[in-house]
Amino acid sequence: METLSLLSPKLAKQIAVNFGTPIYVYDKAALEKQADVALAFPNAFGLTVRFAMKALPNAAVLRIFDRKGLHFDASSGYEAWRAIRAGIAPQKISLSTQEFPDDFADLWKTGIKVNACSLSQIDRIGRQFPGAEIGVRLNPGKGSGGTGKTNVGGPDSSFGIWHEYVDNVLDLARQHRLKIVRVHTHIGSGSDPVIWQQVSQMSLELVKKFPDATVLNLGGGFKVARVSSEKGTDMQTVGIPIKEAIEKLAKETDRQLHLEIEPGTFLVANCGVVISRIQDIVDTGTAGHRFLKLDTGMTDILRPSLYGAQHPVFTVPARDTGKKHDYVVVGHCCESGDLVTCAPGDPEALSSRSLPEVQIDDICVIGGAGAYCSAMSSKNYNSFPESAEVLIDANGKPTLIRRRQMLEQIIQNEILPEGL
Amino acid sequence: METLSLLSPKLAKQIAVNFGTPIYVYDKAALEKQADVALAFPNAFGLTVRFAMKALPNAAVLRIFDRKGLHFDASSGYEAWRAIRAGIAPQKISLSTQEFPDDFADLWKTGIKVNACSLSQIDRIGRQFPGAEIGVRLNPGKGSGGTGKTNVGGPDSSFGIWHEYVDNVLDLARQHRLKIVRVHTHIGSGSDPVIWQQVSQMSLELVKKFPDATVLNLGGGFKVARVSSEKGTDMQTVGIPIKEAIEKLAKETDRQLHLEIEPGTFLVANCGVVISRIQDIVDTGTAGHRFLKLDTGMTDILRPSLYGAQHPVFTVPARDTGKKHDYVVVGHCCESGDLVTCAPGDPEALSSRSLPEVQIDDICVIGGAGAYCSAMSSKNYNSFPESAEVLIDANGKPTLIRRRQMLEQIIQNEILPEGL
Repeated sequence: METLSLLSPKLAKQIAVNFGTPIYVYDKAALEKQADVALAFPNAFGLTVRFAMKALPNAAVLRIFDRKGLHFDASSGYEAWRAIRAGIAPQKISLSTQEFPDDFADLWKTGIKVNACSLSQIDRIGRQFPGAEIGVRLNPGKGSGGTGKTNVGGPDSSFGIWHEYVDNVLDLARQHRLKIVRVHTHIGSGSDPVIWQQVSQMSLELVKKFPDATVLNLGGGFKVARVSSEKGTDMQTVGIPIKEAIEKLAKETDRQLHLEIEPGTFLVANCGVVISRIQDIVDTGTAGHRFLKLDTGMTDILRPSLYGAQHPVFTVPARDTGKKHDYVVVGHCCESGDLVTCAPGDPEALSSRSLPEVQIDDICVIGGAGAYCSAMSSKNYNSFPESAEVLIDANGKPTLIRRRQMLEQIIQNEILPEGL
Repeated sequence: METLSLLSPKLAKQIAVNFGTPIYVYDKAALEKQADVALAFPNAFGLTVRFAMKALPNAAVLRIFDRKGLHFDASSGYEAWRAIRAGIAPQKISLSTQEFPDDFADLWKTGIKVNACSLSQIDRIGRQFPGAEIGVRLNPGKGSGGTGKTNVGGPDSSFGIWHEYVDNVLDLARQHRLKIVRVHTHIGSGSDPVIWQQVSQMSLELVKKFPDATVLNLGGGFKVARVSSEKGTDMQTVGIPIKEAIEKLAKETDRQLHLEIEPGTFLVANCGVVISRIQDIVDTGTAGHRFLKLDTGMTDILRPSLYGAQHPVFTVPARDTGKKHDYVVVGHCCESGDLVTCAPGDPEALSSRSLPEVQIDDICVIGGAGAYCSAMSSKNYNSFPESAEVLIDANGKPTLIRRRQMLEQIIQNEILPEGL
């Protein structure tokens, strides 16, 4: 049984009344605590923790992590600019992107760092800024997923430079007098320490080919358990073999590598919830299902529809009847796939949760909604506005950090051509 | 082999240069032609074609269809207001929604129509507007998908009122003196005329229980072939059995039902494309894949990642080498699932397309992008801005109908709390 740990039912109701629903709620103390856990990641010769800001790019969250001493991983030029506008020092921002920004020169001049993610990116950087210090993201040839499936490492992944092309990397670097000071090998390694041991070994073999590299960046992929049936990553357990491998390299070669990790989900997933209102309850007869219809859905939390992701669901009845029901929880979109309680890994398969009996207008809280929820939703589908975001401060006080979008803003860029 | 029918390679390049990429392009003549096909749907005693605007809610598109004599289906209160703001007469708008709007009273007073989609919606309408004329959306108990899977009809669907509750519907209507003048039974029936025959028969059996109903609304679900391996719906073929069933009812009972259909995909899917720029080309060695990285992806076209949907892909090489390659086409997000050429029905399985050899900065056009693309994307993921939209008019001239979003607009609702 999951518990609603982030906020009390009373505070959930209070936020719903004061700020409206649906609304994202993040907890500052929880964010800071996760930052502390990440900052304690085992390391031999120094550590930089970069928040993968694509998981939750709200400026208030970036600044909380900035104060905790975290640096930042931007996955697009837009994200890098967004972090700068939020007041993050460019020196703390590292860009590793699938799409090399058109305005890279402007970004580079602010002082950001960059990890080139393809041979052509190295060439484009080198042409504009010969002699620069850069990092390279490599695909070490092994991923954590199955064959033929989308993956962040291995032959089925488009991320990073294929490991067989290290000589081409070195040639291009020489050609443009680039100094390769960082090696990045994110493969999304999950919670198994044995896999992390393999990854760190592969990564260190690659580092050996880059004599100027002083930083090893292992990326993110630290799993988090959102529901009790899932297993999260223990940072200490997976970190120890990495630390030992870096120490071994130091003994063998006198190279003392600084370690970087880039957690996204790990830092924020369980620090946020969505508070929604149950706006209808329907059923399909005695042999059918009992459905809770929320005033949220894939427009705020796309992960169940996209991956079959599991999020804890809590109902907050105004009146406790002592009864429970098996409810299938669905979103508000006119879309059969807008299903909150899908089966694990199967977005289209209905699953139900045993929850305290509720009435229309009662509150429903969806947990584990800090990562890739406000950041990655089917925003404005069915013309539903982007939801508001609230931060609970150290004193338990909720403060608005994003206003609810208005319909006027959804259509503000539309232009009606003459004659229509 | 698919063909790039909507626009010439020359016009695609011209639009890319003049308006930037990624960009949605819609063709006015194609939209009008599809409207004509829909308006020719077989009917016995009159037909209203409602555009399911959730598929493509841009004001310019709504006005094109308005001039063609189409009416509109809104799936949320926000959509209804959006249509009204676009200049659509409220009398032409019908609301069928999973989420009953808080401001329903204001909407109703404009003159829109409503199909109540749950018993509680009937009750809420009746309390506010006793004596009103409304429609009801029923779930006839049969869907077109498999058991236990998300569906728009049958026991696994939360859409509409379960058919066994017709007596409750009639009771509530009597209680509030509501007149039920429309029966809506959308189950998403696909392209098989036999299924449509069953659906129309089931629907007419339900209509018999509502003596005041003068309109039968069969919803949408008319499939469209986006790629040559898919089979689309022939409107004439599926429409004939419906027409015959309505005529039979008229002979038996003297009731002459007006027919409504609500196509979304059918009206717009193949009337739009996304023009993108190939911003990188990478490979994973001789045993691996050759990847085209676009400057678009799930931020503009989510359907492949969400459903494993198939979209035609065309490359427009600046220099024709006469060669072809098998390319895996991926999007620009730092997300392994941002895959354009997935396997049919399997979002995570890599598939490739044999395409003319291209270089970085060449154009790539994704077809079948009129429906549920700009309307349903993972907008702003990785902080990529919402793309611009262009309409090609009857003279072949492209006109901007939505400006590209700016980063400033993405963050315009953020508020930095004091002390952060």
